[in-house]
Amino acid sequence: MESRRIASLEKLAEYFQRLPGIGRKTAQRLAYSVLNMEEDKIKEFAHCMVTVKKDVHYCKFCYNFTDKEVCTICADMNRDRSVLCVVEDPRDVETFEKSREYNSLYHVIHGVISPLNGIGPDQLRIKELVSRLSSGEVKEVIMATNPTVEGEATALYLSKLLRPLGVKVTRLAYGIPFGATLEYTDEETLGRAINGRVEI
Amino acid sequence: MESRRIASLEKLAEYFQRLPGIGRKTAQRLAYSVLNMEEDKIKEFAHCMVTVKKDVHYCKFCYNFTDKEVCTICADMNRDRSVLCVVEDPRDVETFEKSREYNSLYHVIHGVISPLNGIGPDQLRIKELVSRLSSGEVKEVIMATNPTVEGEATALYLSKLLRPLGVKVTRLAYGIPFGATLEYTDEETLGRAINGRVEI
Repeated sequence: MESRRIASLEKLAEYFQRLPGIGRKTAQRLAYSVLNMEEDKIKEFAHCMVTVKKDVHYCKFCYNFTDKEVCTICADMNRDRSVLCVVEDPRDVETFEKSREYNSLYHVIHGVISPLNGIGPDQLRIKELVSRLSSGEVKEVIMATNPTVEGEATALYLSKLLRPLGVKVTRLAYGIPFGATLEYTDEETLGRAINGRVEI
Repeated sequence: MESRRIASLEKLAEYFQRLPGIGRKTAQRLAYSVLNMEEDKIKEFAHCMVTVKKDVHYCKFCYNFTDKEVCTICADMNRDRSVLCVVEDPRDVETFEKSREYNSLYHVIHGVISPLNGIGPDQLRIKELVSRLSSGEVKEVIMATNPTVEGEATALYLSKLLRPLGVKVTRLAYGIPFGATLEYTDEETLGRAINGRVEI
């Protein structure tokens, strides 16, 4: 049987499929959609992809992505340098910044401890976190890993590791999401909201 | 307030967001994920994107994508040339080919008539379909546009246009999808399955 396949289109779909959350069908759709773009736009897109990898690297302090030597957050002298917020992912930093509730520094560990996936503390930026605390400038570390089993376990691991260094280790509050209705709140969340109730 | 934005990363996310079905959040996730790829792989991906647009174009007969002058389906002399299947999208051709039930030719019209989106018959490959029928070789045209309101309307429009040319115009059968359970079949589908019932 003769092959109907268009080699370059199939290859492009394979590349799309390597991106996270993109399945085979979506990858195919995206590859086809490139054919509908203007040639100039495709070239710019392709160029941008290569540029990003060249321009962007880790901040040498917080391991967030930056195109400078030190990211603008770490370089911002108006921020409180006594508090560090530990997050899993650079995108979590964006989320925090959008809330405008936080004016201190971050540390991105780039993942969570997950023995099943072969990720232990050594694969994360935990050594770098510990050495950042050695100056004694940081008084509090806020754990802001995701509220998942692995995120919880990582926060627990880090709190045990960091507390002996003389820093206060805290965790984001659990509770009912603002704007949610009680009827649709799951039991676990409601249970934690009850246990974490505060006087008003 | 100082900008924390990484220009090249934001730009890459904007390009991803132009792809169909990719929202702002997903685009950001994809842009970040490029940072985690190896530089060589990114270069290959980018190169592939540009190559696809250069290599791939419409088949001059059926308007499916091909990297040759005539696509392998139209060039295949073992196929029955008296039947054309009209589809909206090149990916629909793939779906038909996978079913292995069809051994004739296709015509890709690249969309559906959709006045609300400013797409009329002139924006689709309908002129080309009509001129393909002029040789008299084609005896039957199967409408295989999607079972949506617009797909139906397009099939109806085409059948009115083509019937006077002396070809038989047919439509794919509607009915219960194979492997489905009656309990979860929607009323419209069941109604059509009843009306289209056949003797066994």
